[in-house]
Amino acid sequence: MQFTLQQIADLIGGTVIGDATTKIWQLAKIDEPTAEGSICFLANPKYENFIYQTTATAVIVSKDFVPKQAITPSLLLVDNPYIAFTVLLEAYSQLVAEAGQKRKIGIEQPCYIAEGVQQGEAIYIGAFAYIGKNCVLGDNVKIYPHTFIGDNTQIGANTIIYSGAKIYENTEIGQNCTIHAGAVIGSEGFGFAPQEDGTYKDIPQLGKVILENNVNIGANTTIDRATMGTTLIQSGTKLDNLIQVAHNVVIGKNTVIAAQAGISGSSKIGDNCMIGGQVGIAGHLDIADQSKIGAQAGIGGNIKEKGTTVIGSPAFNFRDFMKAYTIFRKLPTLQKQIDRLMKEKEKE
Amino acid sequence: MQFTLQQIADLIGGTVIGDATTKIWQLAKIDEPTAEGSICFLANPKYENFIYQTTATAVIVSKDFVPKQAITPSLLLVDNPYIAFTVLLEAYSQLVAEAGQKRKIGIEQPCYIAEGVQQGEAIYIGAFAYIGKNCVLGDNVKIYPHTFIGDNTQIGANTIIYSGAKIYENTEIGQNCTIHAGAVIGSEGFGFAPQEDGTYKDIPQLGKVILENNVNIGANTTIDRATMGTTLIQSGTKLDNLIQVAHNVVIGKNTVIAAQAGISGSSKIGDNCMIGGQVGIAGHLDIADQSKIGAQAGIGGNIKEKGTTVIGSPAFNFRDFMKAYTIFRKLPTLQKQIDRLMKEKEKE
Amino acid sequence: MQFTLQQIADLIGGTVIGDATTKIWQLAKIDEPTAEGSICFLANPKYENFIYQTTATAVIVSKDFVPKQAITPSLLLVDNPYIAFTVLLEAYSQLVAEAGQKRKIGIEQPCYIAEGVQQGEAIYIGAFAYIGKNCVLGDNVKIYPHTFIGDNTQIGANTIIYSGAKIYENTEIGQNCTIHAGAVIGSEGFGFAPQEDGTYKDIPQLGKVILENNVNIGANTTIDRATMGTTLIQSGTKLDNLIQVAHNVVIGKNTVIAAQAGISGSSKIGDNCMIGGQVGIAGHLDIADQSKIGAQAGIGGNIKEKGTTVIGSPAFNFRDFMKAYTIFRKLPTLQKQIDRLMKEKEKE
Repeated sequence: MQFTLQQIADLIGGTVIGDATTKIWQLAKIDEPTAEGSICFLANPKYENFIYQTTATAVIVSKDFVPKQAITPSLLLVDNPYIAFTVLLEAYSQLVAEAGQKRKIGIEQPCYIAEGVQQGEAIYIGAFAYIGKNCVLGDNVKIYPHTFIGDNTQIGANTIIYSGAKIYENTEIGQNCTIHAGAVIGSEGFGFAPQEDGTYKDIPQLGKVILENNVNIGANTTIDRATMGTTLIQSGTKLDNLIQVAHNVVIGKNTVIAAQAGISGSSKIGDNCMIGGQVGIAGHLDIADQSKIGAQAGIGGNIKEKGTTVIGSPAFNFRDFMKAYTIFRKLPTLQKQIDRLMKEKEKE
Repeated sequence: MQFTLQQIADLIGGTVIGDATTKIWQLAKIDEPTAEGSICFLANPKYENFIYQTTATAVIVSKDFVPKQAITPSLLLVDNPYIAFTVLLEAYSQLVAEAGQKRKIGIEQPCYIAEGVQQGEAIYIGAFAYIGKNCVLGDNVKIYPHTFIGDNTQIGANTIIYSGAKIYENTEIGQNCTIHAGAVIGSEGFGFAPQEDGTYKDIPQLGKVILENNVNIGANTTIDRATMGTTLIQSGTKLDNLIQVAHNVVIGKNTVIAAQAGISGSSKIGDNCMIGGQVGIAGHLDIADQSKIGAQAGIGGNIKEKGTTVIGSPAFNFRDFMKAYTIFRKLPTLQKQIDRLMKEKEKE
Repeated sequence: MQFTLQQIADLIGGTVIGDATTKIWQLAKIDEPTAEGSICFLANPKYENFIYQTTATAVIVSKDFVPKQAITPSLLLVDNPYIAFTVLLEAYSQLVAEAGQKRKIGIEQPCYIAEGVQQGEAIYIGAFAYIGKNCVLGDNVKIYPHTFIGDNTQIGANTIIYSGAKIYENTEIGQNCTIHAGAVIGSEGFGFAPQEDGTYKDIPQLGKVILENNVNIGANTTIDRATMGTTLIQSGTKLDNLIQVAHNVVIGKNTVIAAQAGISGSSKIGDNCMIGGQVGIAGHLDIADQSKIGAQAGIGGNIKEKGTTVIGSPAFNFRDFMKAYTIFRKLPTLQKQIDRLMKEKEKE
């Protein structure tokens, strides 16, 4: 998709300084190397020096912008460059999505569709995808190549499942969800009963996983089925890559969890929480709504109060941790002070 | 599979209070929302209030249970509700497994079976599975769709390999193992020889991986082949999801490792250890039998004594860490006390 | 591939003590259980006792070696056993690689090759591989079964992509790269704009991923595409298993990163860095060339000075951390000393 600078100016409401017929075909960042046909924007004055170096074809700037040096790219003057770029980004990604959606319709061969599968309208099933018995695929569902969908699984309208995701049987996935490549949903939880001879016996894992609407699951993230009942991810919640969600966990609405975090069995996470990367949460805990958990924190107890911010392993209040950690760094000095005090005490 | 309450009462030795012909088709937990046809149990008095709210169809309770309010579900009176439920769970999962095993027999097409593959009795090979040259599959082996089995791999009887697991060539897998979706076994270890110009040269990784009997490997866990020799997981050991096991690691018998733990090259873990989630173990270490390593611990040295419990990064004795950490949290107070003592000292 | 001891002696320049016609077909380590046909070496005197126990068929030893007990295996006397073994290892892996390369040529069926794909010479495409539209595959590229290559992706000569790796559209991969099973490259970054009602809206992820030459990517590692622009891994860099690389990250040349580390969005890692396992690096940071980051460290700020070594979470200078941590372990003693000083002060 190519556009002229003038077409873009019309879209975002701006004035072209330079050749209005110049062709643009990609969006770029002003502080990164860019190729021909790129447009970027300058909003933050801290980035001004980049406009004198960029190889972008055009830059969106404020109409009040006064250059201090010669500028190579064409300019597009607007009231607010950030908002203008957002409008452009939105329009561009809409076009990309529409082109992509149009492309990805139909059923590629060979794929495997078992008996009793219900297919909605305008779906895509990629080559080598496997759809088990009695699955229900809503309208506009996109199933990329190498995806495995176990028997009796339901997938709501507009949900996209990328290549190689593995959904075990009986899973329920809502509408407008995105599941990235390699994610595993519904595998058997880690449940073993210790025997007298030191061996372990598998505890049957008979439950399932439910993802509500508008849930995103990152690449290679794993979500275990419940031992009994349901492992539940509520609507609007977003999981990054390589996250572990154990059996019977419940995660509330609109909670975001960064990469490589892990949540142990039967813990309940509230709504609108923000959980950092590599966080570990022990089992059978309750984490209050709007909790903020700093990266690498280890949560060993309940978080009872809404909006609590914690860090550390084991974690406690963020500010208190930071104060304690500042002194931790000075412990050798503290040790010396105490040694001196002790010595003088002895002298007395 | 549906059962009447009376059939269940006969199985677990109980008495029905309510309609004995009521149909039951799923097991549930008393403290979770449940659908029609569910049976759950009440053993712990702390959960009593849930029996007055549950929408389950029936609840297994002690014959001594005296309700304090009206109860909607039918009741099934037994001597010990927990044991009774365990019996029911066992019977149910046996039925589910048998139904599943019956269902998953035979070879789905298209799949790829190279020359020289030996197939046992009653095996299942899912569509799009790839079995390399000269592999040996024991009786009752189940290979789900999209599984990759490299050349010359041996898989013992009753082992199940779920969708999309990737087994590199020459791997040996014992009997009654379960390998979950997306696990990678036998990939090249992380071995690179630094060159004078700052680049790295790959060190050939010529060894293999052996899993003994009754080993479970979680979803998206990775186990590297040995540089030379064998990366070995001994019998009865259970690995959770997203674990990293590097080249030449040896893990003893009946050891359980929680999700996202990582073990560096050539370390040897003993028998009957319990290793928490997100634990990191450095390379070339010996970890004694029955070691217990707390979640997120970092192990930088050998653990020599059997049954040691450690935590922290770097890890040390659990109780000592907890005592030190309690004072860490109070460091700002300590700092103030020392400041005051120092100031008064100066005055003297 | 079998060799006689004499053939090996000729290759590495040594003398056989024992039957020179004995057949050897595998390399082994002297301190591990070995099977018939194995050869290992003894260089470090600390390992001498293993030579009296090993079941290997032959051992490479120094010509100056004087046994203290009876020895079962044949011996191969050389000037320097370590160097001799390295020569043998190199030759052996060369043979294995050549045999492997020869074997893996051609296109297995069924696979899916979309329109407009350019194929170099001597390539391998495994069964069930999916190659999207207009992809370019260089000479000698090896694509294993179940690999997904999205539209418009370029893969340089001699690159190997193992089973089940998932490469999203528009990715650029250089020459001589190795991508292990289950790795995901180009998935959508974790970008969501919070809305006033507490929900999150997906931010379009329009950029791509570029891997330069000689890059290795471990099993189940995930690398997100840029929001705009490029997520870039420069030449010679080696990533272990289960690593997370977020959108717009740049990693310099010849940097090695151990398993389960995670790098947040837009951070820039320098050349020749060494990053330990389970390290977490926050977003928008600059990490100087030759930085060394210890396992499990948490990096919350820039590392400005070349060659800095850090550890801890949050991380700081390695030696300072270790000094502080030594005192952390003794905090209960410190506490007692302060308590005593305070008590005596009160008495005064």
